[in-house]
Amino acid sequence: MSNKYDIAIIGTGPAGLSAAINAKIRNKKVILFGIKELSNKLLKAPKINNYLGFYDVTGEQLKGKFQKHIEAMNIDIVNEKINAVYAMGSHFTLMVNEKMYEAKSVILATGMEYTKPLKGEEEFLGRGVGYCATCDAPLYRGKTVTIIGYNREAEEEANYVAELTSKLYYVPMYEGKYNLSDTIEIIKDKPIEIKGEDRVKNLMMKNKDIITDGVFVLKDSVSPNQLVPGIEMQNGHIKVDIDMKTNIAGCFAAGDCVGKPYQYIKAAGQGQIAALNAVAYLDSLK
Amino acid sequence: MSNKYDIAIIGTGPAGLSAAINAKIRNKKVILFGIKELSNKLLKAPKINNYLGFYDVTGEQLKGKFQKHIEAMNIDIVNEKINAVYAMGSHFTLMVNEKMYEAKSVILATGMEYTKPLKGEEEFLGRGVGYCATCDAPLYRGKTVTIIGYNREAEEEANYVAELTSKLYYVPMYEGKYNLSDTIEIIKDKPIEIKGEDRVKNLMMKNKDIITDGVFVLKDSVSPNQLVPGIEMQNGHIKVDIDMKTNIAGCFAAGDCVGKPYQYIKAAGQGQIAALNAVAYLDSLK
Repeated sequence: MSNKYDIAIIGTGPAGLSAAINAKIRNKKVILFGIKELSNKLLKAPKINNYLGFYDVTGEQLKGKFQKHIEAMNIDIVNEKINAVYAMGSHFTLMVNEKMYEAKSVILATGMEYTKPLKGEEEFLGRGVGYCATCDAPLYRGKTVTIIGYNREAEEEANYVAELTSKLYYVPMYEGKYNLSDTIEIIKDKPIEIKGEDRVKNLMMKNKDIITDGVFVLKDSVSPNQLVPGIEMQNGHIKVDIDMKTNIAGCFAAGDCVGKPYQYIKAAGQGQIAALNAVAYLDSLK
Repeated sequence: MSNKYDIAIIGTGPAGLSAAINAKIRNKKVILFGIKELSNKLLKAPKINNYLGFYDVTGEQLKGKFQKHIEAMNIDIVNEKINAVYAMGSHFTLMVNEKMYEAKSVILATGMEYTKPLKGEEEFLGRGVGYCATCDAPLYRGKTVTIIGYNREAEEEANYVAELTSKLYYVPMYEGKYNLSDTIEIIKDKPIEIKGEDRVKNLMMKNKDIITDGVFVLKDSVSPNQLVPGIEMQNGHIKVDIDMKTNIAGCFAAGDCVGKPYQYIKAAGQGQIAALNAVAYLDSLK
């Protein structure tokens, strides 16, 4: 299944929303990936005084204004988590587990709330470590797989993968009741390090070591250089110029993920710049 | 007379206003120079859809929101036109005709609506051409001076300078009734070129040539490199990095004056970045 767009925007904080409204005004075919209820970060802000035009508003009120704005413009939020963005030269391919989207340009507005990688995670990426269990499941038929799950969506992936593997360990990184197949072994422990030689062999945890052929880390979000292979970083942020261009042609970034200050109107302003430069980029392709 | 501030902000478009609210929230002593009624540019916008949080508003409505915001925060606008900003190393000196302000840092949010220089204007700057008639008036005692006035405030300067000069020509660049002393000769013509040798000798106009010792061009705003000697420009805009820093330490810039897109929320976002980095700069001085 393939879906083609002019601009794919990842993230529904102020940067992503501002990019979406600006791209839509310029009549581009836009897809916006994120959380329908928008960022929780907004809700945590008790009082916002520094967003020009709104004085003395709560995060919830401002979130309401943003929601009203995108609804008035018929902008939908696609509630899917992009696992990877590949620059293919003429376009970008965005992976959502087994699904694929295609866009001529991409705007990354992924924020800064991503989980730190485990020791060994980056080293063994592609050699037993992955971020999409359902994508790679066929490779693990009859083998032992461990899923480190940071959210409930990870349980669905675990149940699917468990049908193929001989053994599936599930390490939940959150509290609650787990909706998992009976064949899955739940381990409540703290992952410390992924070890191996050519490929992954062990997951070491605080109290226990397990032997495993693969480890899938299913996080809320991955760091930009895990999400977009080849993207240039600088001091932990995506490196952009004043036009919000990254080092990859057609790929723009805005908001917290490009650097401080971590503020709403800074992010919204950059989202606009990113969108308008993405539009200029699209025009240059003609 | 000297007035000392932490941050001086020049311009009351979205960039300047956003800088002001952010600097004020950080408890800095701020002075904001501009037009009390805010920018007319806003009024010209019939419909604004791309400022995240406000959908389908008129420029006038958005201007009202901005005004309400700065009033709620007790931010005053000083209705004075800065003629020059000098970097003195430890601080900046801002000149308003005969008046002087002092600030540890400066944020330029001057927009892009400045008048193109006349032929010869830059060549003879400081050698008969000036932007502040009242400042330089003592040098022209008993001489012939021409004032090219782009706005009504120029009339006040003309009336003051006419008390010292032997002859004052006033070339109004706008229509209307002029409130000028009887001794002043009004010339309705189009200035073409300022000529001279070591110093200014003539002002050539479309229909008439006049002999003059000095020419003052009193515009709404001058270009950034005339306003701030030594500031680095790039393609007609102030060159800034992603933190809105110019090449002069402690001097920041935001909004239209640093480049396209010429948009409100882009400007507001950059104003915030400039303010927060000015605050960081002030902290680094301690």
